[in-house]
Amino acid sequence: MEKVVIESVAMNGGVGDYSYANNSSLQRSGFEAAKSLIHEAIMEKLDIKHLCNGKSFRITDLGCSAGPNTFIAVESIVEAIEQKHHSEGLKLPLPEFHVYFNDQLSNDFNTLFNLLPLERRYFAAGVPGSFHTRLFPEKSIDLVCSLSALQWLSEVPEDVVNIGRIHYSNAPSEVMEAYKGQFSKDMERFFDARAKEVVHGGLMVLSFPCIRDGQPYSRFLVGVFFSLLGSALMDMVKMGKVDQTKVDSFNMPFYAASPKEVEALVERNGHFTIERMETQDSPILQGKGVIQVYSKHNRACSEGLIRQHFGHDDEIIDELFDLFTNKLSESFSILEESSMNFVFVLLKRKQD
Amino acid sequence: MEKVVIESVAMNGGVGDYSYANNSSLQRSGFEAAKSLIHEAIMEKLDIKHLCNGKSFRITDLGCSAGPNTFIAVESIVEAIEQKHHSEGLKLPLPEFHVYFNDQLSNDFNTLFNLLPLERRYFAAGVPGSFHTRLFPEKSIDLVCSLSALQWLSEVPEDVVNIGRIHYSNAPSEVMEAYKGQFSKDMERFFDARAKEVVHGGLMVLSFPCIRDGQPYSRFLVGVFFSLLGSALMDMVKMGKVDQTKVDSFNMPFYAASPKEVEALVERNGHFTIERMETQDSPILQGKGVIQVYSKHNRACSEGLIRQHFGHDDEIIDELFDLFTNKLSESFSILEESSMNFVFVLLKRKQD
Repeated sequence: MEKVVIESVAMNGGVGDYSYANNSSLQRSGFEAAKSLIHEAIMEKLDIKHLCNGKSFRITDLGCSAGPNTFIAVESIVEAIEQKHHSEGLKLPLPEFHVYFNDQLSNDFNTLFNLLPLERRYFAAGVPGSFHTRLFPEKSIDLVCSLSALQWLSEVPEDVVNIGRIHYSNAPSEVMEAYKGQFSKDMERFFDARAKEVVHGGLMVLSFPCIRDGQPYSRFLVGVFFSLLGSALMDMVKMGKVDQTKVDSFNMPFYAASPKEVEALVERNGHFTIERMETQDSPILQGKGVIQVYSKHNRACSEGLIRQHFGHDDEIIDELFDLFTNKLSESFSILEESSMNFVFVLLKRKQD
Repeated sequence: MEKVVIESVAMNGGVGDYSYANNSSLQRSGFEAAKSLIHEAIMEKLDIKHLCNGKSFRITDLGCSAGPNTFIAVESIVEAIEQKHHSEGLKLPLPEFHVYFNDQLSNDFNTLFNLLPLERRYFAAGVPGSFHTRLFPEKSIDLVCSLSALQWLSEVPEDVVNIGRIHYSNAPSEVMEAYKGQFSKDMERFFDARAKEVVHGGLMVLSFPCIRDGQPYSRFLVGVFFSLLGSALMDMVKMGKVDQTKVDSFNMPFYAASPKEVEALVERNGHFTIERMETQDSPILQGKGVIQVYSKHNRACSEGLIRQHFGHDDEIIDELFDLFTNKLSESFSILEESSMNFVFVLLKRKQD
């Protein structure tokens, strides 16, 4: 089979009908679930005296996409730090905040910048590049947040053979093992890079889709999406519109780890302590209206990957997502029974 | 007359035929003239022990546009600092460099990021916003550079009445006085913002078009450009394609100060010492081929402003620049006799 590397690609840019900016309410529900935990984390675990010693306070959102969820997240972090500062009655003035919005080079930073709130309490910068690599100078970041981003692998392992499918969720176990191995490598690189960049005592707030122990992939919402999207692609193969080998060599670089796996990876890396860890259920949307929301959500997140692999034929993309939308309708009862979980992890940078 | 505010707009984005990225060789010639002075400035005036005390070294290019000149500038600054570090035989390791590329919100940051050199010795970030306002936290910048950018005013003063012209270069003296007043206000805001952001002992390297004392605007290259562009717009008025009131209310927010004016503004502000100041002549391109270079250069720099004021009719824009190109040809001998000067200023942040 043709050797193909599927690398992660940014979410859809702009502010159009299929843009991430207008189709990220599902990610927002994940964030809303994490919001109160982030607030508590800052109130309980942020060593504000140590971190705000006359310098600016530097925050980064890794995998921020083109907005607007990232602004809500950052605003609530800044608010929590201000509240913590106030509650401790510190004599030091409130620090100025410097916020670095990071996503891949292919992210639409122009849209991100244009959506920046005009009234904001921080200085803003955009940082292009993979968060699996170094992005900042040593010891220059006080707080990292990354919401709904770490599930995206840097790439699908080259040796994955996955005939007629586009994800491990409905595949033999060796496919899943290959994904698991890639996630483990990616997280190691992520933690190593952050270990250099985050100051001692600095916090990392991570939240991303996970699978509960024993939960079948057949009822994991994103797994269901990918099975249906793969099935829509195979329909197009049957119609002679897409090449079967193209489908065989295409896989979504998305991995949902279990909380235990995440815990083991943090411990193996050794640079951070786990201050808090929780699994949260994201409410599953109800009602027939959800079909369009799910369809556009998937298009906003995967169109870039699909175009990169299958080419930029608008008709093919439109038809694929029409088929996918029909399949979502047909599988409505499965979607209603499925669940979507997020793991929330609060980490603190150890003294070396 | 209709009240219209002409605010600065970013250079053309993308990498197309009329993009700034592909039509910035004139600015590059200004930078090439400044390059050896920047190198000397760093070798002679950078207090490397004080600034590189175990932290990263933070550089910003203000008004960087969409590339590629900014990368050449930054690379040569980093190289000079490395050389200075080496020449002093410091025991401290070489700092990591954090480079902030700044331009207006309307700048094409996507293109800028995609043109970033893959092999670079610094961490990169993009910072959207006017350099006439605060962009960074207090005391967070070690070296500012701004090349061919400060000549752009934040806006044309509202009370400028300039019938049938688009610049002060061929206008009555009260028009020029209004521009001069705006430049003075803008520079005060620029110096005040930088005074907060630059660390004590930090450097600012500024280079921008200037006019030598007594030099007539009729032979200042950019003045000639704007006279011809205004004349092309008036031709379109006569052809009934553009409204005269639109031309009357349009002015290019571009001001060429004299070195004496710049000196007085730095001194009035009081936060920086002038470590070096020079006026440099940029070589005027020769030969008929220059007409296309000049035409595209002007289009890359002013198309955004023109569209903002006159509307986004591609035909009008194309026709305007065809007329302008013809006028450049007709005035070829004047262009050959004109000159283009840059003022180079090296400033150091005083102790308060």
